[in-house]
Amino acid sequence: MKFTVNRNLFIDNLNNVMHAISSRTTIPILSGIKLNLSENELLLTGSDTEISIEIRIPVSEDLKVDSPGSIVLPARFFSEIIKRLPGKEFSLEVKESFQTQIVSENSEFTINGLDSNTYPRLPEISDDSAFIISGKTFREIINETQFAVATQESRLVLTGVHFTFSPNKIHAVATDSHRLSSRALILDQGAQTETDLIIPGKSLLELARIIGETDPQIKVCPGENQVLFEIGNILFYSRLLEGSYPDTARLIPTESTTQVEFDLAELSSALDRASLLTHAGRNNVVDLTLDTEKQSVKLSGESAEIGNVEENVSFRQLTGSNLKISFNPDYLRDALRASVSDAVIMEFTQPLRPFTVNPNKTDIDFVQLITPVRTF
Amino acid sequence: MKFTVNRNLFIDNLNNVMHAISSRTTIPILSGIKLNLSENELLLTGSDTEISIEIRIPVSEDLKVDSPGSIVLPARFFSEIIKRLPGKEFSLEVKESFQTQIVSENSEFTINGLDSNTYPRLPEISDDSAFIISGKTFREIINETQFAVATQESRLVLTGVHFTFSPNKIHAVATDSHRLSSRALILDQGAQTETDLIIPGKSLLELARIIGETDPQIKVCPGENQVLFEIGNILFYSRLLEGSYPDTARLIPTESTTQVEFDLAELSSALDRASLLTHAGRNNVVDLTLDTEKQSVKLSGESAEIGNVEENVSFRQLTGSNLKISFNPDYLRDALRASVSDAVIMEFTQPLRPFTVNPNKTDIDFVQLITPVRTF
Repeated sequence: MKFTVNRNLFIDNLNNVMHAISSRTTIPILSGIKLNLSENELLLTGSDTEISIEIRIPVSEDLKVDSPGSIVLPARFFSEIIKRLPGKEFSLEVKESFQTQIVSENSEFTINGLDSNTYPRLPEISDDSAFIISGKTFREIINETQFAVATQESRLVLTGVHFTFSPNKIHAVATDSHRLSSRALILDQGAQTETDLIIPGKSLLELARIIGETDPQIKVCPGENQVLFEIGNILFYSRLLEGSYPDTARLIPTESTTQVEFDLAELSSALDRASLLTHAGRNNVVDLTLDTEKQSVKLSGESAEIGNVEENVSFRQLTGSNLKISFNPDYLRDALRASVSDAVIMEFTQPLRPFTVNPNKTDIDFVQLITPVRTF
Repeated sequence: MKFTVNRNLFIDNLNNVMHAISSRTTIPILSGIKLNLSENELLLTGSDTEISIEIRIPVSEDLKVDSPGSIVLPARFFSEIIKRLPGKEFSLEVKESFQTQIVSENSEFTINGLDSNTYPRLPEISDDSAFIISGKTFREIINETQFAVATQESRLVLTGVHFTFSPNKIHAVATDSHRLSSRALILDQGAQTETDLIIPGKSLLELARIIGETDPQIKVCPGENQVLFEIGNILFYSRLLEGSYPDTARLIPTESTTQVEFDLAELSSALDRASLLTHAGRNNVVDLTLDTEKQSVKLSGESAEIGNVEENVSFRQLTGSNLKISFNPDYLRDALRASVSDAVIMEFTQPLRPFTVNPNKTDIDFVQLITPVRTF
């Protein structure tokens, strides 16, 4: 196996494959990156069993093939070596016993590779039920829901986001059973038949990073236990979570007794201050007091060791019954960070019932639910 | 005690005092910041016993005094609170049992303070033998030597930089016994009498940060066990290291048998690559091979697990005898980073004797010494 490649082109692709390679893998071969060279293309593969990424670099004037072949190289070192090479291009040649020579100008590395036959095979996923979605839409819906997945694996299905793809809609919901984020977006064209997938939150984070700030077309190919996302020359495989996702729609209250509308920036700063002290103590809880007669909103927090804080929060509108409610400020902070409007409407029923955070625009289908904390 | 202050003015000064406050102190009161308010000024004090910083904020339209007094507040929380307050100014009032109220617009914090009488007193240092130096000069000489101090405290005196201040010169030397950095700069005006101080490396790092990118005048007041640096309204106290610093001048070779001049950037990149693999192994050693007949310079490194690298380094000039020498690449990298010229001259005597790294300009008084490693 021998080829010569433009270094910057190679680094761009290498960086994307590195997203799939974990330094803490228990399977030694997976700390490596697989290079497979044919007459037509160089294929880079990385995997941590949860996600796998495969990138095709086609033969061009930036990639010249001398002889096809295949090798697995230690990913972290290989990547650091390539980034520090002096020249605009480098050549790579596999010699005896998987020894691999990398040459660029006056610099020559020889590193120990591994037999690529011992690298696990990626699943084959047919594109029979494939459909196309916008990368920008998909990244947005990930950012608006992924943070709410469970991080503890006691209920595995909750560590993923539940997606429902329909012909004209994409709906995602995530919950860790303390809070929930449900977001739907209209699509010009989506899946031909309704397809629901539970995709691990960690996979979605990496996928969002790979999508980046651009708006590529994404081809989604759902498989048995895996889903494949095709983004340009990148193939992104993720494990799917099995099991049935809870019916969360029935959890969202349809009526409310108290409603308050806040400017997003005002509420965020007041919440930051109120949670400063509660973060220090064992009980990370803030109190929100809504007085509809006096038309006042107070947010307060305390830590026995350090002290307490009281915020008179300004608001746009406050209606309904008086209410005092206690909750984890981090859940509200996450909800506000995910918000897509410059003001939010919070709606409450009772002090111990979940409350909702909604955009102040009725055409945005986005509900966040937060469960309060009992403090007495 | 009560005052009202411009928040940005206060934050700038608070940030500087925070340099002296360690979160890992074993003396609880030192995790606090002391505020002492007189009719004329507010004095902020922080200390970790190694260094202490005192800053004076004079009364002005930005600082209004209601009633003098004094308090110690938990530094980290106090600083985070002040940074997040909503208004342009805030007021601070000490109430009963050291409870301290901080108010800014609609935000009100009450935090538990401590009796300032329990805060340690700073030493009194006379300015009888004080002198003035340029902040820029002092920061440069710190950056060029401080990295070479010992980090292990087995020989305490080596954890400091040895400064000699004379009427027309400032000289600093640091060594951890494996490498040494000796730098001297001409002063227009320095100490009236020769003054030598061993200042802990850690103190110098903080001092360099406080000096920043400006060129303030620094008044140096040497005391018995402490030295005081006055920089504008900042008083910076550092402990001095006691004992006699070794006579390092005699360590620096006066003759050499091999000399090579490198472009700084060329040598740095080659060294980075050569040390990539050696950093992975237990033996962090690179080999430098100078062949004066063939006029070639090679730098090589290896790790048994990963592989090896060989660099043909380009150079400006190579003279003297052939030589092969082995050393820790991190020492050379530090020496190159501290370099003040765009090319360096390395001079060698024997494979097991220390070698020097010098600027390629004879008017710069800067010598770095590196001890090689025996590899056979």
